Amino acid sequence: MANNEFEQRRQTVTAGLAEHKLDGLLVSFGPNLRYLSGFTGSNALLLLTASRSILFTDPRYTIQAGQESTCQAHISKGPLTVDLVAAIMRWRLRRVGYEPAMMSVDAFQSLEAKIPAKTALVPIKGWIEELRTVKSPSEIARIRRSVETNSQAFEQGVARVKPGMKEQDLAAELEYRMRRLGAEKPSFETIVAGGERSALPHAQPTAARFENGQLIVVDMGALREGYCSDMTRMLFLGAPGTKVKRTYKAVLEAQLAGIDAVRAGAHSAAVDAAARKVLRGYGLDKAFVHSTGHGLGLEIHEPPRLGKRDKSRLKAGMAITIEPGVYLEGFGGIRIEDTVLVTEKGCEILTPTSKELRVI
Amino acid sequence: MANNEFEQRRQTVTAGLAEHKLDGLLVSFGPNLRYLSGFTGSNALLLLTASRSILFTDPRYTIQAGQESTCQAHISKGPLTVDLVAAIMRWRLRRVGYEPAMMSVDAFQSLEAKIPAKTALVPIKGWIEELRTVKSPSEIARIRRSVETNSQAFEQGVARVKPGMKEQDLAAELEYRMRRLGAEKPSFETIVAGGERSALPHAQPTAARFENGQLIVVDMGALREGYCSDMTRMLFLGAPGTKVKRTYKAVLEAQLAGIDAVRAGAHSAAVDAAARKVLRGYGLDKAFVHSTGHGLGLEIHEPPRLGKRDKSRLKAGMAITIEPGVYLEGFGGIRIEDTVLVTEKGCEILTPTSKELRVI
Repeated sequence: MANNEFEQRRQTVTAGLAEHKLDGLLVSFGPNLRYLSGFTGSNALLLLTASRSILFTDPRYTIQAGQESTCQAHISKGPLTVDLVAAIMRWRLRRVGYEPAMMSVDAFQSLEAKIPAKTALVPIKGWIEELRTVKSPSEIARIRRSVETNSQAFEQGVARVKPGMKEQDLAAELEYRMRRLGAEKPSFETIVAGGERSALPHAQPTAARFENGQLIVVDMGALREGYCSDMTRMLFLGAPGTKVKRTYKAVLEAQLAGIDAVRAGAHSAAVDAAARKVLRGYGLDKAFVHSTGHGLGLEIHEPPRLGKRDKSRLKAGMAITIEPGVYLEGFGGIRIEDTVLVTEKGCEILTPTSKELRVI
Repeated sequence: MANNEFEQRRQTVTAGLAEHKLDGLLVSFGPNLRYLSGFTGSNALLLLTASRSILFTDPRYTIQAGQESTCQAHISKGPLTVDLVAAIMRWRLRRVGYEPAMMSVDAFQSLEAKIPAKTALVPIKGWIEELRTVKSPSEIARIRRSVETNSQAFEQGVARVKPGMKEQDLAAELEYRMRRLGAEKPSFETIVAGGERSALPHAQPTAARFENGQLIVVDMGALREGYCSDMTRMLFLGAPGTKVKRTYKAVLEAQLAGIDAVRAGAHSAAVDAAARKVLRGYGLDKAFVHSTGHGLGLEIHEPPRLGKRDKSRLKAGMAITIEPGVYLEGFGGIRIEDTVLVTEKGCEILTPTSKELRVI
């Protein structure tokens, strides 16, 4: 990402400080901090004011901060907040925004105890997350590469599936493949679950072995150049019966209906409703126990959420998942998920992988 | 882990409620919640009172909660806090502890707004973390298996190292091997860094290829049955020169001095001082930019910390790392790390891997 993209982002924030009645914004949440500075270390604070940006981190990251941070970095020998508060005082900041959803009660109280009485800490919710929802061309390019890497790894891994293979060995294979293809790591813990365990929406792979007659859910994503992808596909070992075929058809229709409802300006809840309505037609809506999708980018789950009660509207440039699923205890679960890019007139499905049930 | 081990843990907590002047304790931090209930899902709250324990989670985890939770599970259709507050009111709890270091300002304020005026939320810091520092025999058995898996994966991966291999391909290989050996996943992002990049204490593997004459740092851990391991070893491609040999010797002596200082009753800071003193003798103490070690268990970093300013004393049954390192910009970094178990008279080094510099 070009340095001036980070500068532009910081300028967007500093230009918005007055509107939020702030003299400065303290950014402590890792993905927001990376978005605004480029720094990826685990311990850092970023202070933005109209005229200055400064990143505080510790001596473990001296070299890394020099390489990654696109704004001035300060290495603190003790707690970062000591130097942060010194800067707040030196620059006479009176109203400093902070991220209440991402700062612990403890960290907040320790900061509050140090800052001068004249300075107010002002909770700012979701501002940077909102900026992050609409991806720039360079971010979209990274998400595309992440999605493609992920789909290639899926094909390489699935080619090895056969009865007797362990869930955890397929997960290991998929993650190994994505890394060999250039991903930094999986964007979340790969889900591989066979048979009845596929009914766990967040199943962790176990030592259970695949058997003939089993549904297998594979939910996987790559992290590439810092950006996430997310895809779910279903495999079947042997010849699928009527219930599997009918349920698969229902979920696929629901997923296509969800995708069809995506466009700039659409309500997130309307996309969810479109998918849910199809499942209701099959009497399966009660088995759809989560929301239809979520944004992704630097994080695997970021705004917007596409659930029943979500009030947001989609914007062109958002990268989101569409992933209805049904979960039937004692039978199994079926979920189909793509990563899509919202456009003015609809969406572009980024995930290139076929949505046919993979019969093995 | 036997169900009654979880019950015993909860009894230890409920027996301590009176001492903390509490009617109940709200546990929201994942590892603490797992430690006390067995549940591993991502969205849950655990409420403990003298007479009852109840786990709140959402419908995605209905089946998993039934399988994993060793106490009563309640599936909430909306926000978990609504049902939590209903229980607090029904049971007339007046003083409920919460974890201020692990709860966001936002989550706290939303909870505070819902609970009745008669109920006080009382910050409780590090209580469960403190209980977790001393491992039970079944936890030690798991840590042993995690350490052994990790060391086996290291040997399998290192056997493939040669000039031209990419850092990220070695990391992928190591993680693949540990999973094939039965680990759930790495306990943290595997660090593989060659040449000057080894001077980054928290280096992420890149596409850089190993070259002759390079130091390579490998810092890796497995997660097995929920428990972590952590080990750092150094490789050298070709024939190491005087500076590498001398620096390696200094770090190894420092690591052995640290290990030698470990015993039940020793101050954490004294272990750190023992390692640091050796490096001072070599004029390398300023290049040792982090603390000497940390506890590990369900988390890769948990109390105690073994740094300059840490006041805690070691206890028999603690699992800790001893990992001094020196980082010289433009030259590289050398760190040697074992996982050890604190005993009454000293410690048992769990890590079976040789600490010789691996010359390849």
